[in-house]
Amino acid sequence: MLRTNLGQRIPEGMRDLLPEEITIQERLEAEILTLFRQWSYQKVSTPTLEFTACVQPDLEQDDSLYKFFDREGRILAMRPELTTPIARLVSTRMRGAALPLRLCYGADVYRNTSVRHREFRQVGVELVGSAQELADAEVIALAVEAIAGLGLKNYQFNLGHMGIFSGLMLEAGVDEGIQAKLEEALARKDMVGVESWVRQSGLPGRVQELLMRLPHFHGGEEILDEVLEWSARPAIREAVESLRRIYKYLSDFGIQENVSLDLGIMRGFSYYTGAVFEGYVAGMGFPVVEGGRYDTLYSDFGVPQPATGFAIHLGNLLEQFPLLPTESADVLVYGSDETKIIRECQTLRAKGKRVEMALGVVDNEVAHNMALQKRIPEVHCVE
Amino acid sequence: MLRTNLGQRIPEGMRDLLPEEITIQERLEAEILTLFRQWSYQKVSTPTLEFTACVQPDLEQDDSLYKFFDREGRILAMRPELTTPIARLVSTRMRGAALPLRLCYGADVYRNTSVRHREFRQVGVELVGSAQELADAEVIALAVEAIAGLGLKNYQFNLGHMGIFSGLMLEAGVDEGIQAKLEEALARKDMVGVESWVRQSGLPGRVQELLMRLPHFHGGEEILDEVLEWSARPAIREAVESLRRIYKYLSDFGIQENVSLDLGIMRGFSYYTGAVFEGYVAGMGFPVVEGGRYDTLYSDFGVPQPATGFAIHLGNLLEQFPLLPTESADVLVYGSDETKIIRECQTLRAKGKRVEMALGVVDNEVAHNMALQKRIPEVHCVE
Repeated sequence: MLRTNLGQRIPEGMRDLLPEEITIQERLEAEILTLFRQWSYQKVSTPTLEFTACVQPDLEQDDSLYKFFDREGRILAMRPELTTPIARLVSTRMRGAALPLRLCYGADVYRNTSVRHREFRQVGVELVGSAQELADAEVIALAVEAIAGLGLKNYQFNLGHMGIFSGLMLEAGVDEGIQAKLEEALARKDMVGVESWVRQSGLPGRVQELLMRLPHFHGGEEILDEVLEWSARPAIREAVESLRRIYKYLSDFGIQENVSLDLGIMRGFSYYTGAVFEGYVAGMGFPVVEGGRYDTLYSDFGVPQPATGFAIHLGNLLEQFPLLPTESADVLVYGSDETKIIRECQTLRAKGKRVEMALGVVDNEVAHNMALQKRIPEVHCVE
Repeated sequence: MLRTNLGQRIPEGMRDLLPEEITIQERLEAEILTLFRQWSYQKVSTPTLEFTACVQPDLEQDDSLYKFFDREGRILAMRPELTTPIARLVSTRMRGAALPLRLCYGADVYRNTSVRHREFRQVGVELVGSAQELADAEVIALAVEAIAGLGLKNYQFNLGHMGIFSGLMLEAGVDEGIQAKLEEALARKDMVGVESWVRQSGLPGRVQELLMRLPHFHGGEEILDEVLEWSARPAIREAVESLRRIYKYLSDFGIQENVSLDLGIMRGFSYYTGAVFEGYVAGMGFPVVEGGRYDTLYSDFGVPQPATGFAIHLGNLLEQFPLLPTESADVLVYGSDETKIIRECQTLRAKGKRVEMALGVVDNEVAHNMALQKRIPEVHCVE
């Protein structure tokens, strides 16, 4: 049936990858997964479709899921990320696996938003079953090495902690609605919004000022002392000491210089509870790495476990790498006798050659033109 | 938020792959794609989501698409196969590429049916731009080599031709509704249904008998002579001669003994027009390879080109291979000084070792037990 209009188009946010593009994506993914493997992470795979009850149980939440009903009348969603599906897997079929458990993945995720890509490749890790700061440091160091290993020169990681903001809110008993709006404004670094919601929070003046300063606490270890001068509440002290230990470990890993402390980081997923981090590459206005600690997600699946991890937005990184011509065949085999052509192709393939077979009777000129067009270095006539 | 009931489950027809399962799937896929590469096929990637107007323009058709509306109110579908999306890609962004064009893929496809798997991995090829029987033979030989290359011993391919059935229908002017029902019954090998619809077809008695005999024409080249004794109508003669040439080429490829002629094959996709084939593996009651010629699909995209190809249902093949234990780390590093542990891990990784780092202070006994549980052959204390 004839395809008109939409039938010849690709949906918004989707893309095809030509041979030279898929080659790069696969090379980057293979390099990163080799590194994950070297750090003892094992790959798992979860399905594209999950129940929304798994990936987005809070129906009130404004979400960007691709959702629909299945044959049984239940709401399915295309996975928007892998952390929650892997928590489901670890809490069910992998229950009882030796902890800490180090898992990794390479998979497409889907978000029905208005940004450029709505389907994009992610590679990432989950480290389940350790509340140690050493675990936080391990995944941050691994993320930095993954980006560095791709040969990217200008990259920068920021490290923050959810405990500072949420501790302040909890201790002051701020209304949940206002807290959510404030968190959202902070995550967007919308300082006008932050100020407006801070003023409505009913918090003491000095805490209000601290909240508005949060995005400005960015730099080395000195900012940890500085924030304690503003407030030494237990929640803040705890988060600061945790960051101090992690930052020390990053120095032992030899990657501290690639990581700045940034107390204004608010990660977009609701499951983060502790140290959170993000990685930027020069020229890209959004993080290419997002990660952090999420110590309550596994309780939601009935198997309480602390956990941390990160995801690299691989699809977005493709544009950082030049396209190389794809490898062509080694030899084009042609002639006028199909039996001889077939046999010669099979003989050369058995010797490990990459062989393109001319289809039908082709003369010398046609064969040489074809080889030229397809960048095949050798032509072989079996006449 | 607590996950109850559905929140902890996986949707019908979906599955997780544990490390030992994804390892096998990826190994099989890599082996097959290496073979495709050796035959000069280049990999492409298309999105998970397409407009239904592309993959299923006939809204009347009873289909098994996962469908839903996007933000713009258009109907999207998860790809049920790759042949049509690749035709879209070749007809648009790759328009003008040198022909014949050999493309391959490895991707998940989605069918909202009641069978066991609704998401499954496919690897396959498309050979675009050649109407030659040599092209048919090339893809059949490649499919056979792909299955043989996995080490599977008991496999069998069947080769048929859509032209025999459709030629009979066309020449006799059979009602389209009856033709569709008859084709469906033949595809299901439902001989009671075939007989019922044949009787309603209004075809001459001898053609009716031939139709009912179609599923029994199974064997070597002798069945081609036999079918011509039943009818020598132009459409049948043409299909038979085409099969004869392809079968001869398969002998040149050295794989004729793995392929039987079977005039009862009716492939499930409406786009097939010529030689069609399927591959079976012992103990599996459905084809693991499906392919054939589709010479009108590219016209539907406004760029008429003959084409042929096949898909291997890789997900279904997994159960044919024993699960092997996944590779564990080479060494577990532990001790009581985190700085020393981190540095030792980094040193060993730099030497190419796969290293698992103990998190927190761990004594000898705990470390050895952990290594035993995780099958890590070596433990290394940095005390």
